[in-house]
Amino acid sequence: VSKTRVTVVGATGYAGAELVRLLENHPLAEVVAVTSSRLAGRPLDEACPWLSTGLVLQELNLDQVEGQIVFLCQETGFAMGCARQLTSRARVIDLSADFRLKDQDAYETFYKRVHSDPTLPAVYGLPELVDRNAIASAQLVANPGCHPTAALLALMPLIKAGIAKGVPIVDSKSGVSGAGRSRTEVGYLFAEADNNFKAYGVAMHRHTPEIEQMAGVHVRLTPHLVPMPRGIHATLYVEMSEPTDLIDLYEKFYRGERFVKIQQNEPSTKQVLGTNVCAIAPFYDPRTGLAVVCSVIDNLVKGAAGQAIQNMNLMIGAPENCGLPESGLWP
Amino acid sequence: VSKTRVTVVGATGYAGAELVRLLENHPLAEVVAVTSSRLAGRPLDEACPWLSTGLVLQELNLDQVEGQIVFLCQETGFAMGCARQLTSRARVIDLSADFRLKDQDAYETFYKRVHSDPTLPAVYGLPELVDRNAIASAQLVANPGCHPTAALLALMPLIKAGIAKGVPIVDSKSGVSGAGRSRTEVGYLFAEADNNFKAYGVAMHRHTPEIEQMAGVHVRLTPHLVPMPRGIHATLYVEMSEPTDLIDLYEKFYRGERFVKIQQNEPSTKQVLGTNVCAIAPFYDPRTGLAVVCSVIDNLVKGAAGQAIQNMNLMIGAPENCGLPESGLWP
Amino acid sequence: VSKTRVTVVGATGYAGAELVRLLENHPLAEVVAVTSSRLAGRPLDEACPWLSTGLVLQELNLDQVEGQIVFLCQETGFAMGCARQLTSRARVIDLSADFRLKDQDAYETFYKRVHSDPTLPAVYGLPELVDRNAIASAQLVANPGCHPTAALLALMPLIKAGIAKGVPIVDSKSGVSGAGRSRTEVGYLFAEADNNFKAYGVAMHRHTPEIEQMAGVHVRLTPHLVPMPRGIHATLYVEMSEPTDLIDLYEKFYRGERFVKIQQNEPSTKQVLGTNVCAIAPFYDPRTGLAVVCSVIDNLVKGAAGQAIQNMNLMIGAPENCGLPESGLWP
Amino acid sequence: VSKTRVTVVGATGYAGAELVRLLENHPLAEVVAVTSSRLAGRPLDEACPWLSTGLVLQELNLDQVEGQIVFLCQETGFAMGCARQLTSRARVIDLSADFRLKDQDAYETFYKRVHSDPTLPAVYGLPELVDRNAIASAQLVANPGCHPTAALLALMPLIKAGIAKGVPIVDSKSGVSGAGRSRTEVGYLFAEADNNFKAYGVAMHRHTPEIEQMAGVHVRLTPHLVPMPRGIHATLYVEMSEPTDLIDLYEKFYRGERFVKIQQNEPSTKQVLGTNVCAIAPFYDPRTGLAVVCSVIDNLVKGAAGQAIQNMNLMIGAPENCGLPESGLWP
Repeated sequence: VSKTRVTVVGATGYAGAELVRLLENHPLAEVVAVTSSRLAGRPLDEACPWLSTGLVLQELNLDQVEGQIVFLCQETGFAMGCARQLTSRARVIDLSADFRLKDQDAYETFYKRVHSDPTLPAVYGLPELVDRNAIASAQLVANPGCHPTAALLALMPLIKAGIAKGVPIVDSKSGVSGAGRSRTEVGYLFAEADNNFKAYGVAMHRHTPEIEQMAGVHVRLTPHLVPMPRGIHATLYVEMSEPTDLIDLYEKFYRGERFVKIQQNEPSTKQVLGTNVCAIAPFYDPRTGLAVVCSVIDNLVKGAAGQAIQNMNLMIGAPENCGLPESGLWP
Repeated sequence: VSKTRVTVVGATGYAGAELVRLLENHPLAEVVAVTSSRLAGRPLDEACPWLSTGLVLQELNLDQVEGQIVFLCQETGFAMGCARQLTSRARVIDLSADFRLKDQDAYETFYKRVHSDPTLPAVYGLPELVDRNAIASAQLVANPGCHPTAALLALMPLIKAGIAKGVPIVDSKSGVSGAGRSRTEVGYLFAEADNNFKAYGVAMHRHTPEIEQMAGVHVRLTPHLVPMPRGIHATLYVEMSEPTDLIDLYEKFYRGERFVKIQQNEPSTKQVLGTNVCAIAPFYDPRTGLAVVCSVIDNLVKGAAGQAIQNMNLMIGAPENCGLPESGLWP
Repeated sequence: VSKTRVTVVGATGYAGAELVRLLENHPLAEVVAVTSSRLAGRPLDEACPWLSTGLVLQELNLDQVEGQIVFLCQETGFAMGCARQLTSRARVIDLSADFRLKDQDAYETFYKRVHSDPTLPAVYGLPELVDRNAIASAQLVANPGCHPTAALLALMPLIKAGIAKGVPIVDSKSGVSGAGRSRTEVGYLFAEADNNFKAYGVAMHRHTPEIEQMAGVHVRLTPHLVPMPRGIHATLYVEMSEPTDLIDLYEKFYRGERFVKIQQNEPSTKQVLGTNVCAIAPFYDPRTGLAVVCSVIDNLVKGAAGQAIQNMNLMIGAPENCGLPESGLWP
Repeated sequence: VSKTRVTVVGATGYAGAELVRLLENHPLAEVVAVTSSRLAGRPLDEACPWLSTGLVLQELNLDQVEGQIVFLCQETGFAMGCARQLTSRARVIDLSADFRLKDQDAYETFYKRVHSDPTLPAVYGLPELVDRNAIASAQLVANPGCHPTAALLALMPLIKAGIAKGVPIVDSKSGVSGAGRSRTEVGYLFAEADNNFKAYGVAMHRHTPEIEQMAGVHVRLTPHLVPMPRGIHATLYVEMSEPTDLIDLYEKFYRGERFVKIQQNEPSTKQVLGTNVCAIAPFYDPRTGLAVVCSVIDNLVKGAAGQAIQNMNLMIGAPENCGLPESGLWP
């Protein structure tokens, strides 16, 4: 079998390095180039001693990018400047927020910058909730954010069933790796973040419009920082127009989905650690008429690198779960 | 100065031991007896090697309890059997749930047992929200639960102002010590709980009626387990009948309160570690019309032993903040 | 390709479940049966919600054990009672200590029990340090302990070179999963073990004779408990008879080994998380004449389930690294 | 009682802020000024939201320093430039390494800088091991390092008894706060340091000569980073010239000492969290002839701010334990 050749741009960050790690076990794809602007020329394993590859970091050269698939794993704001050029040579999966929002006003409001290429077509790559054919044939896929992935997979069955009322509330909790590897700020130091829990971005968080774009309603998103490296737990509160058997509703909605697991017990973030799985437990509370839905993912897998590979699998015609773990690392 | 003499019943659990620790620095009270049914006769410091006292654990003898104040730090279900007898000899502060609820049906529904002494009068000891004179003159104080303390201090300014609508949502997150020291179950093992986050008791949590009793409305409480030993962070979502300057509202509501700190930035659980402080940051979200209120306490201090001492101070006529730290242990 | 069929005895403990997880990605072996005495009849994924298998737990039936390979993942003391019978039907890899020690006196002294089957032949399965042909042809393999694996891989190059003097000191640090999943004792509770570090078993630890058996000298082993779920870091101090270029010595000793990585920088336990790799950094300290050697493994992979699979690979003629990750889960 | 007035220079770092916190409960001293070069003019509680003081940060003015005692809590290299001038106006306790070493060659070798004021007299402030009168009358006290405090308290009873042979080994493990609050490097990020354990500075660590200066022999010090905010655990290995009852030896050596606790069980770092106590468990291993001594402190209290206050108490004639906690924060 000839493998799809892949370039990872920004391979020393958490999402980029996780892509390299996961793709080592992918039978139908291989990483042929890894880039870093700061560390070009150095072995990847030097910057990322947990990786065992022979790869050497390169400068990104937009005219000579290698392979059929390019993963962009840079900060938001980078992809908009190179995606158009890259898509003329390869198919691109962007893990930043640059191409997720259709509404440029929302982009400018929430990301505080002007978009330099707002007309480049991109498909939002959340396979369980969008047209898979669109992903399969896309030249540019916008890989979803981590909070939106956990939130939307929990929310959309209620929205689509037409039984959600009011403003859905998404109380979301994230491991610290969500801040990225280059955010060396005092608040992310171990000594400060350990044994600590707090909300952040309460006034306005960037992932809000991404959820609203698909949900079609205003939502209230509050992210929190959990003293653990990985994982997202979203707790949703949705007013219901009528009592509903939610387990049944969700099981039907996700029938046949490999990466969504509906369960009766509260899920834990660690049960999906290292996997591409989203585990969801929906509860109907008759005292208050609310649906309370718990949803967990690994923010770096289903919330980033794993979902990017899931999209790649669709694009290259591989089985959707190819190379993607379903059993978690425990304890 | 002659010190008030105090007995701690159940001194080897987390709340009991924290009482002993805090009272060591109390200028107007001293622990004269500590009890444990399992370890009577052994030095307290053997069961709790972090304590430096000369105290020896005793059997609880209801007829000879020492001191003017007795703190009951046993599991819910214990106090109802001895509080009446104890209150004939001393004044009692019960840290369990036995005397918090006025509605016995709620007690039976949520605690799954019949109350054996439902008519014994008790005052709910949340000083910032109840009549301090009632606490000061009480023979039996029911010390509030940890989730309710964080939730009610955040919620009541909105309720009292008459601007709250609908069902307040309390998304509460607790450190693992909330489970107690005797819950040696697999789910509380370090290897299982570390690097993990999950909700628990979603269907129905015991602290719900305690919040509702004071709030006067139905609330939706969802507790979660955070991989840290101590701390509670409650995030509240309350529909507002009108836009409001919440900082101003909360500052006025808690003017003069020593242990409530209103702040503009998101509070962190660690900022109040080891203190009797509740730090609250209220946000009004104009996009959704919701108040989003973040509230943090140390579950073993303001959520248990510290608040118990605050109540004791009122009862013995000491300054309310006597012996109670206001600066946190960091990092 | 027909896959080797495998039974995992004691599949709900940490080592057993890790075997199931790792074998899911093994191209030449498959788990056909999992046993649990306590939970027979229940789905494996119910006891281990992080696993995604369709396997149902069975009672162990020694007369009908399935497959060519049986992994015994029970507490020490179990295997001695059934290994002889099992080896008449299958090849057995025992992850307990029952067959590691040749000296029965040492077994009785350190494990406080009499061995019921001391004459059953077993091969000590540490592939990098023993005759691989012996493992390949063994009917019973004694899989090494976690502390001994990290210690011996670091120590033996010095011993074999004949430059070690005196009593080697092994200061070893282990994540809490080393205690196992069934040790629900107060000291292993999250609230007690988090934010905490301590030595244990200083007077005498069971893994001491296992190291001494191979090293041929007395060693001093002191294990410590680290507030993390997984990982072992052994720091060795060995008096040297002469100054030596240790990097060169170790690289030559382990030339061609896939799972031993010699490095100049201090290794971290997380760099090998989830992998079968032992990373070693040897330092020569000219001020004191000591070799200081740092050695890290994942206690549940190279220290248990991964090394067991490495042994299985040798036994079934598969490539030694088949199905065993070399890149770690980070962060 | 008129309180001793105190200035804390560098109050926003971990040691400085811990001084402020501890001194709030000191009956005989009060902080009257806090300085920060970067944040002068801002409230201390803004930089340190866990503190509840009304103090405002100032620029350090060497000509107008307030109070009788000045604590210098800056990086090593700062104190040498101002201590002479400060000691003409106040008594100074320096928490850096600038005045700990008598041997300037060692200072230059280990700290990689030339000392600008090597002749200024200073007393090494480890009260249990030096002449307390010298501390009491000193104008400049060099507060010991954290690793040396844990190591020396464990080592000196053996040295003084004349039963130690060879090179004592100090395998020391530190919580991450030891790196300080301003070391915002990738390796100290929560996501990197959590669930991780590693050695650092193995080739040569700065605290080595500080231990050797008092011990009078070469020692081998290897520090490690533990995924916890606070605490040091030193494990010492010392060859013994003869079998010795170490518990008896240590108890006699430290008889009457308030802050040294000799115990038979392995101590844990958490048992001394927030206290000024050093807990030591000495073991004699007859198999190897080694003393194995475990020693724990809170690196920010007995290893920094607490010991500084202990020295201040001696200097101002207060009881040595005044304002210093002996019971730990648990869990």
